[in-house]
Amino acid sequence: MARIVQKFGGTSVGDIARIKNVALRVKAEVDRGNQVAVVVSAMSGVTNQLVDYCTQMAPLHDAREYDAVVATGEQVTSGLLAIGLQELGIQARSWAGWQIPIISDDAHGKARIESINGAAMIAEMEKGHVAVIAGFQGIAPGNRVSTLGRGGSDTTAVALAAALKADRCDIYTDVDGVYTTDPRIVKSAKKLDKVTYEEMLEMASLGAKVLQTRSVEMAMKHHVRVQVLSSFSDARGTLVCDEDEIVEKALVSGIAYSRDEAKVTLIGVQDAPGIAAGIFGPLATANINVDMIVQNISRDGTTDVTFTTPRADLERALKVVKDSMKVPYKSIDTDKAVVKVSVIGVGMRSHAGVAQTMFKALADKNINIHIISTSEIKVSVLISEEYTELALRALHTAYGLDAA
Amino acid sequence: MARIVQKFGGTSVGDIARIKNVALRVKAEVDRGNQVAVVVSAMSGVTNQLVDYCTQMAPLHDAREYDAVVATGEQVTSGLLAIGLQELGIQARSWAGWQIPIISDDAHGKARIESINGAAMIAEMEKGHVAVIAGFQGIAPGNRVSTLGRGGSDTTAVALAAALKADRCDIYTDVDGVYTTDPRIVKSAKKLDKVTYEEMLEMASLGAKVLQTRSVEMAMKHHVRVQVLSSFSDARGTLVCDEDEIVEKALVSGIAYSRDEAKVTLIGVQDAPGIAAGIFGPLATANINVDMIVQNISRDGTTDVTFTTPRADLERALKVVKDSMKVPYKSIDTDKAVVKVSVIGVGMRSHAGVAQTMFKALADKNINIHIISTSEIKVSVLISEEYTELALRALHTAYGLDAA
Repeated sequence: MARIVQKFGGTSVGDIARIKNVALRVKAEVDRGNQVAVVVSAMSGVTNQLVDYCTQMAPLHDAREYDAVVATGEQVTSGLLAIGLQELGIQARSWAGWQIPIISDDAHGKARIESINGAAMIAEMEKGHVAVIAGFQGIAPGNRVSTLGRGGSDTTAVALAAALKADRCDIYTDVDGVYTTDPRIVKSAKKLDKVTYEEMLEMASLGAKVLQTRSVEMAMKHHVRVQVLSSFSDARGTLVCDEDEIVEKALVSGIAYSRDEAKVTLIGVQDAPGIAAGIFGPLATANINVDMIVQNISRDGTTDVTFTTPRADLERALKVVKDSMKVPYKSIDTDKAVVKVSVIGVGMRSHAGVAQTMFKALADKNINIHIISTSEIKVSVLISEEYTELALRALHTAYGLDAA
Repeated sequence: MARIVQKFGGTSVGDIARIKNVALRVKAEVDRGNQVAVVVSAMSGVTNQLVDYCTQMAPLHDAREYDAVVATGEQVTSGLLAIGLQELGIQARSWAGWQIPIISDDAHGKARIESINGAAMIAEMEKGHVAVIAGFQGIAPGNRVSTLGRGGSDTTAVALAAALKADRCDIYTDVDGVYTTDPRIVKSAKKLDKVTYEEMLEMASLGAKVLQTRSVEMAMKHHVRVQVLSSFSDARGTLVCDEDEIVEKALVSGIAYSRDEAKVTLIGVQDAPGIAAGIFGPLATANINVDMIVQNISRDGTTDVTFTTPRADLERALKVVKDSMKVPYKSIDTDKAVVKVSVIGVGMRSHAGVAQTMFKALADKNINIHIISTSEIKVSVLISEEYTELALRALHTAYGLDAA
C-alpha cells in the first residue's frame, strides 16, 4: 500500500462532468489499494469571477477579505468531489484549509504554509476514507482564512504530501508532462521522463507554468517525488525528483520563457555607494518582485540602472520609485514588450560554453539581447517579445533538443 | 448609541451594484452613531446554482458536503460587503459561521442554532468595527460547516440580535413591510406600522413569506424587536414586537393566504377509537406536515377524514397512506386546487363574532368553505383556489382594512 496525494487543477475540475471524471481517477488509485488524499482547485473561471467581484467592490481591497471570498471556490469543488466519490461507493469527506488545519502566516493573498497538522485527516484516511482537500488556502493568525496566491493548490498538494509522508504527489493538469520547451511554439519539443527539482524550479519560475515555483521548492526541501501528468489522458507524465534518481543527465534539459516581464530603466542615477540599496530597498518593502538587475558603468558621476518586474507589478513599482525612492535620477524608461528566455540544465554545471552557444544562436538570428543573467544551472536573456518564437526554435535546435 | 443588527437578503445583494448600495445603508446606520452587525445572504441565484451542482453530482448526497458547498455563497457576500464598507472608510470585517462561532446541531441542511459565542465579535464591534456575518450557517459537531435551511439568514440575524442584545434587528427585503394582505391582489392593502410576534408568526407560516417562521419564533422567545423594511426605498417598515408595544390593537390585523396546500380526503374510514392516531401516526413518522384536520360525524359506522399537507408533500403523503396505514377506508380523494385564507389579529382574543364576519363575507360571494380551523388569534378556511382574489378582497373590506 502506498500513500498518494493527487492534485487536480481548475481545468480538470472545470465542470460537473469533469469532476465526475476526477472521481473515477481517484477511485482507480483507491482500487490499487492505496491511501489517497486529493487536493482540488476551484472550477475554472470561478477564481477569476471572485477576484473580479473583489476588484469591482474596490480596486484596492483588504487582502483578508479577498482571501475569505476567493477561498470559497476550492471549498465548493472539494465538497462536490466528496459527493462524487461517495456516489462511486468510496468513503470520502471534504476538508477546508481551516478544518485540517493548514496553518499559514498572515501574508494574506500570498500566504506561506507554516505547518500542517494532519493528525485528524490521517486518522480518517487510515479508516479508508479519501480526504478531499480545498487547495490554495490555509488559516492565518486571528482565525482568518488565507490564500496561498495563484497556483497555490500545487503548494498545498506538495506540503500535504510532505506532512503525510506520501510516496508520490501526482499533479494532474491540462498538459501531460514537462517538455523541453513550449510544444505550441516548437513542434519538435519532447516530453521529459524525469527532471530534477532544480531544473523544474528554473522552468517554473521562468514561466513554464506547469508547476508553481513555491511548490517545487517545497518538494525539493522535503524530497517529495512529484509527477506531472494529464487528467485527460492515461499517458505517463514527467517525474520531478532528486538528481540521484536521474541516470543520464542532459547538458540542457529545456528552454523556458516568460512573457510576464516588464523592464524599468532609471536613467542618470546619481552614482554613489548604497544606490542599489536605495533603489531596491523601497521596492522590497513594497513587496515587489525584482528579477533581473543590470547597472551600467558610471559616466559623469551618473549611471543607468535597469531591472525587471512582473508586468502586473509595474504600475506599483513605478509608484514606489516616484514616491519613496531617495536616490536622485533624471528619468524613467519602461518597456512591457519584452520576454525572458532561459536555457536550463543541471548538466551545465560541469560544462563551459553553454552560454556562448545561446548568444551565438541568437546572434545568428539577429536577435538583440537587452539583459543577461546567469545562475549555476541556467542562462537567461531578456529580448524583445516579438522574437519569442524565433528564439525558442533556434535555441531548441542549437542545444540538440529537437525530437528525432 | 444603539446596537443594530441588519440583514440583507439575496435580492438586496443580487449584484455588485446592490452590494455597494447595501454598504451605503450600513454606513447610514454607522453615521447615526450606532454599533452595527450585518447579516447577508448569498447573491441571488448563487445558492440555487450550488444546490444544482450538488444534485448533478448525485441526486441523493451527503448533507455535510452539501452544507460545505452551499455555505460558501454567503461567505462570498460577507467578504464583498466588508470590502465595500472599507471603501467607504468604515472599519469592517467578515465573519463566517465557524469564525464567530455560531454553534449548531448536526441536522445538516436544516440545522438549528444552539448557541452563539459573540465575545470576539462584540470586542471588535466595541472598537467601532462593523461585523459582516455570513448568514444561513453555523458550525456543527465534528468541526463541520452546517446550514440552517432555506431562509436561514433571517434566523441568523435574529439569533445574533439576541446574542448581541441588540436594540433592533432590521430585516431588509424586497418588500417594504408587512401589509394587511397581499397588495398585488388587493390594491387597498395598507402597510402595518407594528404587528405582534404572534400575528407575524401566523402570517409567515400562512404564506405571507416576509419572514421565516423560525426567525419569528426566535424573536418572540428572546424579545428581539424586528423591523421589516425595503432595501430599495427609504420608507419606514413594519416593526414586529411584543403586544405591549402596540397601543391600539386592531381586531384583525391582516388577511393571509397560502396556495401551498393540498387536500386529502379518506372516504369511508372505519370509525373506531384510535383512528386519528392510526392515520396521522404514520404521516408524522414520515415527517410529513399535516395542517388542517376535519373528521365528519360517523354514518353507518364509517366516517370521512380530511386533512391538508404542503403540495410538495402530497405524493409522499399518499404513498404513506397507501403503504403504511392500518386503518381501513373505502377511497381517497385529493384536491390541489385549494387555498387557505386566514384572518389574523391579537384583538380577536377578546371579541366574539370575528369568525362569523368571515363566514358571512364569503357566503355573500357564494364561496364554499371546505374546512375551517381556528386558533386564539386566527380563523382559517380552505376554499377553492379560483376564489382566492375574490375572497381576499371581500374579507379585507369586511374587516374594515381598506385604506381610506
